Amino acid sequence: MGMKLYGTPLSTNATRVRSLLNEKGIDFELVPVNLRAGDHKRPPFLALNPFGQVPVLQDGDIILFESRAINRYIASRYKETGPDLLRSAAGPAETAAVEVWLAVESQQFGPPIEELVFEVLIKPLIGETTDQTAVEREVERLGRVLDVYEERLSKNKYLAGGEFTLADLNHMTYTYFLLRTPQADLVTSRSHVLAWWEDISSRPAWKKTAEIIPV
Amino acid sequence: MGMKLYGTPLSTNATRVRSLLNEKGIDFELVPVNLRAGDHKRPPFLALNPFGQVPVLQDGDIILFESRAINRYIASRYKETGPDLLRSAAGPAETAAVEVWLAVESQQFGPPIEELVFEVLIKPLIGETTDQTAVEREVERLGRVLDVYEERLSKNKYLAGGEFTLADLNHMTYTYFLLRTPQADLVTSRSHVLAWWEDISSRPAWKKTAEIIPV
Ligand SMILES: N[C@@H](CCC(=O)N[C@@H](CS)C(=O)NCC(=O)O)C(=O)O
Ligand SMILES: N[C@@H](CCC(=O)N[C@@H](CS)C(=O)NCC(=O)O)C(=O)O
Repeated sequence: MGMKLYGTPLSTNATRVRSLLNEKGIDFELVPVNLRAGDHKRPPFLALNPFGQVPVLQDGDIILFESRAINRYIASRYKETGPDLLRSAAGPAETAAVEVWLAVESQQFGPPIEELVFEVLIKPLIGETTDQTAVEREVERLGRVLDVYEERLSKNKYLAGGEFTLADLNHMTYTYFLLRTPQADLVTSRSHVLAWWEDISSRPAWKKTAEIIPV
Repeated sequence: MGMKLYGTPLSTNATRVRSLLNEKGIDFELVPVNLRAGDHKRPPFLALNPFGQVPVLQDGDIILFESRAINRYIASRYKETGPDLLRSAAGPAETAAVEVWLAVESQQFGPPIEELVFEVLIKPLIGETTDQTAVEREVERLGRVLDVYEERLSKNKYLAGGEFTLADLNHMTYTYFLLRTPQADLVTSRSHVLAWWEDISSRPAWKKTAEIIPV
């Protein structure tokens, strides 16, 4: 029985999971959820995710929500399918670095980039007005975070060291969306961050993932 | 060589790590960082954590930052020391639930409770003024999240199922601080959430952790 991923091609967080499934070469069905109609806040969907958000993954009897939890589950349960993106066979220093940069994505990079992409890209698509004060605040906050990335990536090819890991992958969805906004220079003006993006986004699995994103 | 944890007894995020080290029975030295003097934004500390925040863990040659990454590292590297809080030997359904509720803590529970505790407890301590609009917004947001917890905990003794895991533990530090604010009723008014807190906070390791918290 194949996996089912509830989400949409435009969902940033579903894209995070799609990018991993493609990297692993795991077949799945993308089951559309009509967010515009509010289907994610009705009982059938709330039974899958009580927080009423996509993505949700169904793998046989196992149902998970939260894109980062789903990716961790896939990466560890299907470690032997495709590359081991958690580097579980590497030494403790390397797995520690994977942990640190997974948490940096979720704690430092995620909050400002999620709010920025929502303000400048998603709001116009759903007919809401961008809050310019929020944009300025998040540009400043994300810029400071990316200064740390620029320094890190000037000394390491990937965030956790010499190899592409789940820590890099989890960044891809929002970086892709940010590059489609007037604030793209947050990435393009930082040469090592840009080189990292060009490298990771040239991976065949990412190209396949991006093909169906409608922006 | 023992572990060193850079932080302070008042640091909520260092407390998250202390609570795990105590649960595991691992000895460590708490190395004070003078946040008031700005030591965390100066080169010696920035060499440990380029984001200039506590906690930082030093375990031999390995240095980590981000409290949740540190806890994941300790829980998996020292799996055999004390209880295995990641339940790595349990079936895939149970480890999936641990992943989900670890991510829920970081994505759903963390943002509102961190902002609320900062506004109502930390700001007064450091001589800043509480923003009442922010308080109202975060009370509302956290309340909705805790409604989901109330339902979950009415059917499961712990967040990931029948056993205490890292998913529960990661919630303890901010729950403790919230209970020392006028917004404590967010927890005390929800009977299953309250029963869960009473259970987990009665653990000897938590009592030892809380002993030195100055609030
Ligand atoms: N932390 C969650 C966030 C999920 C999320 O915000 N999903 C969006 C679509 S990308 C959604 O369902 N929004 C509707 C809502 O929050 O009501 C994750 O990583 O999965
Ligand atoms: N996401 C980080 C947050 C760390 C954090 O905010 N630490 C506070 C003390 S509890 C700090 O160092 N604040 C000073 C600052 O951010 O400048 C973690 O979980 O470790």
